[in-house]
Amino acid sequence: MSDRRSLSFVSLVGIPEVAPGADLAEMHLAAAEQTGLELTGGVLVICQKIVSKAEGRLVNLPEVEPTAEALRIAEEHEKDPRHIEVILRETRRIVRRSHGILICETHHGFVCANAGVDLSNTPADEMAILLPIDPDASAQKLRNELIERGAGPLAIVITDTFGRPWREGLVDIAIGSAGIAPIEDLRGQGDRRGRELVVTTPATVDALAAGAGLLMGKAAGTPSVWVTGIPLIGDGSVAEDLVRDPSTDLFR
Amino acid sequence: MSDRRSLSFVSLVGIPEVAPGADLAEMHLAAAEQTGLELTGGVLVICQKIVSKAEGRLVNLPEVEPTAEALRIAEEHEKDPRHIEVILRETRRIVRRSHGILICETHHGFVCANAGVDLSNTPADEMAILLPIDPDASAQKLRNELIERGAGPLAIVITDTFGRPWREGLVDIAIGSAGIAPIEDLRGQGDRRGRELVVTTPATVDALAAGAGLLMGKAAGTPSVWVTGIPLIGDGSVAEDLVRDPSTDLFR
Repeated sequence: MSDRRSLSFVSLVGIPEVAPGADLAEMHLAAAEQTGLELTGGVLVICQKIVSKAEGRLVNLPEVEPTAEALRIAEEHEKDPRHIEVILRETRRIVRRSHGILICETHHGFVCANAGVDLSNTPADEMAILLPIDPDASAQKLRNELIERGAGPLAIVITDTFGRPWREGLVDIAIGSAGIAPIEDLRGQGDRRGRELVVTTPATVDALAAGAGLLMGKAAGTPSVWVTGIPLIGDGSVAEDLVRDPSTDLFR
Repeated sequence: MSDRRSLSFVSLVGIPEVAPGADLAEMHLAAAEQTGLELTGGVLVICQKIVSKAEGRLVNLPEVEPTAEALRIAEEHEKDPRHIEVILRETRRIVRRSHGILICETHHGFVCANAGVDLSNTPADEMAILLPIDPDASAQKLRNELIERGAGPLAIVITDTFGRPWREGLVDIAIGSAGIAPIEDLRGQGDRRGRELVVTTPATVDALAAGAGLLMGKAAGTPSVWVTGIPLIGDGSVAEDLVRDPSTDLFR
């Protein structure tokens, strides 16, 4: 019989609007204090938007010159050609294009709508937000800065909201992480009757992202959630551990 | 600025091994008491396995006669033909077949490995567990029985562990639910700057499933998790609200 175990997810209050160059570490230490939390022994789950804004991953649409390809796709799908142009720049390969939806493989290897380029919750109209260039590095940097200033041990998970094939609705998934193994490898362990569990590899950081997403309603102004109750075991990166190698991918 | 909000996930202790015909409602009321929880104002997230066992969705492999098709597929992938036969019976359509993996669309419309037919954590060797026939109805039945015996208000989410295209690792998703809207529909609401959020429809029950999965390690004997902090708004079913209509599905 197993013991009672529990997880706690708490939204941080007091994260202000984030501008390029913002000090996310300072911001989170202040917000944690205001929320009555100590950033020790848990996982800080952060919405990609504030990371992208702090890193200046913003594009002014009036400054974008659409290529002929962007113009063609935009006309076909009745979209803003400048938005399409920004999407194409972030795209390694268009995976599907239909019903006015572009499913793209980003340069990171993520497969998502519009290559993660978003026009909502931007600092200004006529602006697009791109995904961070290297979300694992962004997570590692924030983790280091928090630890330098006295927080930790802790892990960081950076999330975005993705659709899924075959399922309606959106869930948050991890696009970057630091300080925790993205996948818990149970292979080789037995099940309750001692038989080997062949493919049981829980994607811990994706589950953390999804759970934290329950407190991160798009319009709620809650970009950061503190999770406790998860053992901080291992390390790794989303890009290396979670993005599936095309050679073993049945849907690429 | 938003208020501090929090979610709590607690694993129920004292759920015994489940046999066909088991009274899941009674079992969960007793386990909740033992855990020090009242099943009121929250979401009870339950692993599919104990629901399937209680409903007798078990197949003795020695009694299975593989068809010619099952024998052919089993030989090609070096699998047990009786396992393949059970998978094919649960399958509406094979979506992908490669690397020894069968990705199937079940009669419910779920797309997952082996049509959800599992050989691990079974009550006996040489046994397969199938998904419940109608997981939404299973959730509704358990909810009604719990409420009849004094629990509630509460919602039920029944989960299974699925792989995903493009991502390594597994996450738990909802295969049935009752007492909560599977998808929170934010369409028509504005973002923080008042622009319409066009496609923001969080799959609440999938996020609950993923978060609860963090406490449900396959081998841990923790099939049930109690979640509080989620508003119990709306109702619906996974089959109708979350399974994507093939006509709008780009990956079917």
